[in-house]
Amino acid sequence: MIIAETIAQVRAQVKEWKKQGLTVGLVPTMGYLHEGHASLVDKAVSMCDRVVASDFVNPTQFGPNEDLESYPRDFDRDCALLEGHGCSMVFHPSVEEMYAPDAATFVEILSDMPGQLCGKTRPIHFRGVCTVVSKLFNIVTPDKAFFGQKDAQQLAIIRRMVRDMSYGIEIVGCPIVREADGLAKSSRNTYLSAEERKAALVLSKAVFLGEKLVREGETDADKLVSEMKACIEAEKLAKIDYVSAVDAVTMESVHRIDRPVLVAMAVYIGKTRLIDNFLTEDCAK
Amino acid sequence: MIIAETIAQVRAQVKEWKKQGLTVGLVPTMGYLHEGHASLVDKAVSMCDRVVASDFVNPTQFGPNEDLESYPRDFDRDCALLEGHGCSMVFHPSVEEMYAPDAATFVEILSDMPGQLCGKTRPIHFRGVCTVVSKLFNIVTPDKAFFGQKDAQQLAIIRRMVRDMSYGIEIVGCPIVREADGLAKSSRNTYLSAEERKAALVLSKAVFLGEKLVREGETDADKLVSEMKACIEAEKLAKIDYVSAVDAVTMESVHRIDRPVLVAMAVYIGKTRLIDNFLTEDCAK
Repeated sequence: MIIAETIAQVRAQVKEWKKQGLTVGLVPTMGYLHEGHASLVDKAVSMCDRVVASDFVNPTQFGPNEDLESYPRDFDRDCALLEGHGCSMVFHPSVEEMYAPDAATFVEILSDMPGQLCGKTRPIHFRGVCTVVSKLFNIVTPDKAFFGQKDAQQLAIIRRMVRDMSYGIEIVGCPIVREADGLAKSSRNTYLSAEERKAALVLSKAVFLGEKLVREGETDADKLVSEMKACIEAEKLAKIDYVSAVDAVTMESVHRIDRPVLVAMAVYIGKTRLIDNFLTEDCAK
Repeated sequence: MIIAETIAQVRAQVKEWKKQGLTVGLVPTMGYLHEGHASLVDKAVSMCDRVVASDFVNPTQFGPNEDLESYPRDFDRDCALLEGHGCSMVFHPSVEEMYAPDAATFVEILSDMPGQLCGKTRPIHFRGVCTVVSKLFNIVTPDKAFFGQKDAQQLAIIRRMVRDMSYGIEIVGCPIVREADGLAKSSRNTYLSAEERKAALVLSKAVFLGEKLVREGETDADKLVSEMKACIEAEKLAKIDYVSAVDAVTMESVHRIDRPVLVAMAVYIGKTRLIDNFLTEDCAK
């Protein structure tokens, strides 16, 4: 596996691959990889001739009081995982390589969409995500790019950005990967104490409850959300940021489940903010 | 010459060219082409195997009280000019092809740069320019793109955007093309009455005066601007929007000509707003 630290190196390699007629898949990550990321690489390997993963903790998507400094990092372990899953190249740039000191250009969706759900408490987050993903698209020029359904709002926003900005890149969403007990895999799970790790199960418990209610025919989104909230509130270490039912494409609030709906949540377990979600479409499966 | 009205058609053709190992140049235009545009196509033809010109009056770069509706259009004449200069394909999309009804993603430089010069009276202009040029980059995926020095602030902003967004595209700036009497070629010259056409000469007159002063050793930017303003104010039909000396890269105001400086102006001749400029670097040539 090639380890590239510069934009120029990535461009040169991708140019070489394209000259050979090979297709290229991109898996953008912030590193500290787990089986969720591995599933994205697996999917990319199955659909593309060459796979580039980026491993970059992007500062522009962190707010001033968020966990940029403490975000977990382990590049050597990441490389082992990526290579083991058939990744062709990892792009691991410094912050200086990605952002000039006076960098000031941003890609932003100027609608209500990025202000919903996680955007309510993370106002600049999706601007940073759109900007860095655009840069990765421009550097790697992939045929397809792979994102996890775990970050459901991010996936919806990237799809919208790709459409609006006329990128000729297919966005492939991949299912949430869970621990054996149900907890959605996340790099931030490492922040949890043993006690918090147990309490964190309340997120997937609420997701499974919501899925069951939808499967049983519930179409009242407000009632669904209320029952899920009650489930989470029973856990003393949990503090709800939001539990919401929204249109799966536009992220607008819905009261009835009469179209594809995303039911998403963010919950603090102690100081750690975790997210989880399900799509009503997937409940019948 | 291929006439493409859809994004899909452009993508398919460019893919074919790239498969053959051919390089692609992009000349973005708003149509109603003149010899200034032709010089961009000539330059592109000299540097690239295939040249794509876009011909699209982009609504997102016009303010609510600007001339979007009245902006001159003549696609048949444009095609004749482009074909005559060796253009391989013209991309002539509808507004609907370029912008979904709920399109909301924009590329924007969040620094003082776009608010200088023309940005003072055209607050959303450069956001619209960055957005449509990004879309054209994403659709055409050119190796090089060609812009006129006539729109000096646009050229500086595009260079900054390309750097910040990590586009692997070389930006080639091309010199201003003038009428025999000095007036910079512009699609908007067509708005001028016979009397205004004569009065419009005051812009190039001020440019030539400024160039002469710099050549003679003037380094006081304020004095330079004052003399150019006095020259313009002598013309009764002219109303100055701005005459400014700015750093040629950052567009920040300068008082001394101690680095590459852009001396730029916007002047109303009747209701028509015209622009012209020179780079102090070019004065010695």
